[in-house]
Amino acid sequence: MSQHKVIYDTDPGVDDAMALVFQALHPDIELLGLTSVFGNATLDTTTRNARFLAGRFAAGVPVARGAAAPLRRAAPEPLAWIHGDNGLGNIALDMTDAAPLDARPAHRFIIDTVRAHPGEITLLAVGPLTNLALALADDPRIASLVKQVVIMGGAFGTHGVLGNVTPAAEANMLGDPDAADVVLGAAWPVAIVGLDVTQSTIMSHDYLASLRDRGGAAGQFVWAVSRHYEAFHEQSAQLPGIYTHDSSAVAYVLAPHLYTTRSGPVRVLTEGIAVGQTIQKPSALPVPSPDWDDRPECKVCIGVDVPGMLALYESTICGTL
Amino acid sequence: MSQHKVIYDTDPGVDDAMALVFQALHPDIELLGLTSVFGNATLDTTTRNARFLAGRFAAGVPVARGAAAPLRRAAPEPLAWIHGDNGLGNIALDMTDAAPLDARPAHRFIIDTVRAHPGEITLLAVGPLTNLALALADDPRIASLVKQVVIMGGAFGTHGVLGNVTPAAEANMLGDPDAADVVLGAAWPVAIVGLDVTQSTIMSHDYLASLRDRGGAAGQFVWAVSRHYEAFHEQSAQLPGIYTHDSSAVAYVLAPHLYTTRSGPVRVLTEGIAVGQTIQKPSALPVPSPDWDDRPECKVCIGVDVPGMLALYESTICGTL
Repeated sequence: MSQHKVIYDTDPGVDDAMALVFQALHPDIELLGLTSVFGNATLDTTTRNARFLAGRFAAGVPVARGAAAPLRRAAPEPLAWIHGDNGLGNIALDMTDAAPLDARPAHRFIIDTVRAHPGEITLLAVGPLTNLALALADDPRIASLVKQVVIMGGAFGTHGVLGNVTPAAEANMLGDPDAADVVLGAAWPVAIVGLDVTQSTIMSHDYLASLRDRGGAAGQFVWAVSRHYEAFHEQSAQLPGIYTHDSSAVAYVLAPHLYTTRSGPVRVLTEGIAVGQTIQKPSALPVPSPDWDDRPECKVCIGVDVPGMLALYESTICGTL
Repeated sequence: MSQHKVIYDTDPGVDDAMALVFQALHPDIELLGLTSVFGNATLDTTTRNARFLAGRFAAGVPVARGAAAPLRRAAPEPLAWIHGDNGLGNIALDMTDAAPLDARPAHRFIIDTVRAHPGEITLLAVGPLTNLALALADDPRIASLVKQVVIMGGAFGTHGVLGNVTPAAEANMLGDPDAADVVLGAAWPVAIVGLDVTQSTIMSHDYLASLRDRGGAAGQFVWAVSRHYEAFHEQSAQLPGIYTHDSSAVAYVLAPHLYTTRSGPVRVLTEGIAVGQTIQKPSALPVPSPDWDDRPECKVCIGVDVPGMLALYESTICGTL
């Protein structure tokens, strides 16, 4: 029996795809569905990509189409220079075996699935948090029925940065800051895997080449889908490899011991020049903070066992677990 | 000849007092004046304390009275639980030799002194930045006439915190965020010594006792003035000693090689729940950021040679330089 029943809320996206393969191949994860959301590309593109990915790597897993735009803002521009024009590094997409679309919108799919498996569902959210906020709005009681919410997003400065799309904001949080502030304020157990650890975890060119050579079809896909993404990292950050964003959230689900966390309520700024910033009140701060103090504690990842994380991904892709 | 002609803009404050003794005793600093500002206590209290400190440790150095409140907000409450009711740890203050008050307001004193020594003045600011903002408003050209501005304030998260009075703000920045955003945006060379390094630099109880025993009258003063402050740190943060805030800015002036810095424009948030937060755009961030990109680079301290800093303070107080 799988340890983790997961709904994967995703905006594929190259690293979303790499994280989907990770989940599909790891025996401790049972994927109950993919829910799409705008973000790395338009909703049409991310939904198409989710259907492609589910069909190719997770046969039988349904895809539900989610939000096309943030709760109260215009949709951001697709990040084509990072993820390619098709959101998947411009690889060819054969849709022959693509998963069919579930009839329900993503937030209803989430609600129904959580209610069908009370206490068992992990919501693994790696895009803007609009679908989760809509699910909470429609059925607030799901907060008490979810096992945990694991989010790739945000940044807390311990790795030296507060954002990757502005000096203060990470892309998923900026994508829908209103939704994020709602989701991080709900009474469900939340863990946040942000830039503090995902930018510390670098898959080098050689690491990716090794996956290609040793990981069969999955490894070859990971290599192919990441070519455009690696070129972006090299060009923009002179990085000899790629940051490990969404797959780090998968690793947290599978092996939380690889991560050092800090507990405390988290707010997301919804206005001003730092809109989208995530700010945690550290438990050690001995001052009253009314804007934080009535909110539930979130676990924020501030450290990672990088070799351990990379070994987990590699052994999963290469089938050597 | 002293290397550094300093105007010390200060809101004494226990750590301000410890930093004044440091400057007064170090041969490479020539104090040209103290300018007072509200902050740790009311302006009346900080001005009285500045006069006391100058009279006792820096005879002949004038004191100019500065701003009683921020540019566009109400003055904050005095931090009596940190600095004592009299702002100096409740030690007895003999005003017999207190420095007289300069006739000019602080910002005019700053302007006149900078213009009298073009290219030579270090503005060492360890309170809310209101006086500096008023000086800039009155005479913007001083920006090009100042040697450097060294500021104790702000936090950038690399030490794990973004603030000490709110989850997002350090006290000096929250004291006058509008002034701070002006000062950090002016075209003068700015270095920021914030919580990232001042909370890493801890003067232990034993270290302070050693200053008392080996530092003569100065060491005994540092010990006495810090008793209330140490009790606050022990009670609020279970810290076996005290954070080294304002003296770290002095150490940066004297020995910048003790500090690792990061360059990039800095904004201070002036609204919202994170008001007072300092946010730097790291030079490595490869995205356009219109709210940062037209501003001058500031140096932000993100690392410190702690033993080196503590040894510099100790040898200065104990006369063993």
